[in-house]
Amino acid sequence: MTLLAKGRLIGVGTGPGDPDLMTVKAVRALAEADVVAHFAKRGNTGNARTITGAHFRPETIELPLLYPVTTEIDKGDEAYRTAITGFYEESAQRVAEHLDMGRSVAVLSEGDPLFYGSYMHLHIRLAHLYPTEVIPGITAMSGCWSQTGVPIVQGDDVLTVLPGTMNEFELTRRLADTDAAVIMKVGRNLPKIRRALEASGMLSRATYVERGTMPNTRAMPLANKPDDKAPYFALVLVPGWAGKP
Amino acid sequence: MTLLAKGRLIGVGTGPGDPDLMTVKAVRALAEADVVAHFAKRGNTGNARTITGAHFRPETIELPLLYPVTTEIDKGDEAYRTAITGFYEESAQRVAEHLDMGRSVAVLSEGDPLFYGSYMHLHIRLAHLYPTEVIPGITAMSGCWSQTGVPIVQGDDVLTVLPGTMNEFELTRRLADTDAAVIMKVGRNLPKIRRALEASGMLSRATYVERGTMPNTRAMPLANKPDDKAPYFALVLVPGWAGKP
Repeated sequence: MTLLAKGRLIGVGTGPGDPDLMTVKAVRALAEADVVAHFAKRGNTGNARTITGAHFRPETIELPLLYPVTTEIDKGDEAYRTAITGFYEESAQRVAEHLDMGRSVAVLSEGDPLFYGSYMHLHIRLAHLYPTEVIPGITAMSGCWSQTGVPIVQGDDVLTVLPGTMNEFELTRRLADTDAAVIMKVGRNLPKIRRALEASGMLSRATYVERGTMPNTRAMPLANKPDDKAPYFALVLVPGWAGKP
Repeated sequence: MTLLAKGRLIGVGTGPGDPDLMTVKAVRALAEADVVAHFAKRGNTGNARTITGAHFRPETIELPLLYPVTTEIDKGDEAYRTAITGFYEESAQRVAEHLDMGRSVAVLSEGDPLFYGSYMHLHIRLAHLYPTEVIPGITAMSGCWSQTGVPIVQGDDVLTVLPGTMNEFELTRRLADTDAAVIMKVGRNLPKIRRALEASGMLSRATYVERGTMPNTRAMPLANKPDDKAPYFALVLVPGWAGKP
């Protein structure tokens, strides 16, 4: 009987959307991996898969990990937690089977793997058991402020990254207590986000960006946005840097 | 007389240190640029120049922009502000001369250009006058949490990025009011940072990283670090993600 060396787990950041914003290291890892795994919703290829497809070899094994529920369900719900925990356990098991056969497994992660990325759920279950490497990616927020040319922070600025799901009082309080902010998970939270920015005196310097760095991106000063329609993954940027030298 | 089209200004993020963590787009921009400018201290090539040198063409014009003062001087000092403002004005002028001759100018920026980057000082002076593009880079903090495998934020976590230069009361207050934190500009602020983390109950989950993703990097749980010696650009990471599913 031959003992196989364990395969390598690699969390690969695929960046904000533009395929050219992947790192040299990520492109190489995808070209060399035996297996490429990616999280996606059922019936949806997923951005990470679309961005990276050109780099796989013909013999690369693809391992789609399909969510049983969407990310917009209330996270506090007990049934949601049970379903999603079971899904992550099963996904880790499926990845581990390939690692045990000595295959390297690259796990695609939109943006940066350890910054709000799904890859983290595999990382905490597998990284202590297998040789593991995490290749960082350009975050969505970085793609958005670069595309729109918004200098987000300088010098001793404090930056706060906030989920738009937060209640209005907390959102307003935290906006009023920071130099610069990024608000994520905008979607149907936009009317509330607008009120919180108005109350904290930040609305006039807020920029709205959807699908940053992708071909169908749209961006504008939030104050000029005529409606409150927004995709879930849209962002609002509030730059700091009051005392520009 | 021939009228030349204006050249293109390109802010290029060179990432956290590992040359393979540059994006495909950044590498291409450097290979195509007529002029490559970079900020550095006198007598010091600078990391960005070292990381990217392999990608220039033999005929690329290099434009070093050498700081008259170091970044560790008190920013509140009037003489400092006058000197640094004059330096940025002069640097913008030197870049503009090349742009006016129709040359494309790539400005190197360690990490991400619009995230605490020196490039920002040129951007605000030139971006409204010349065709401009900003190519994002992997931030130092992202390089650090990827290298050490620290899952920094998940779900609805709030992330706060704090300068270690902040006074102890403010640092403690803000640490106690966030799920996850990144503390930058560590250096001689380390004893104070340690006390603020202790007071906010976060010391046991803090990771110290110096020269992240570079060959001579060092990282360890901050609680295990036996001394208070740290380079200015070292970072402390405090992960959020209390309710892992």
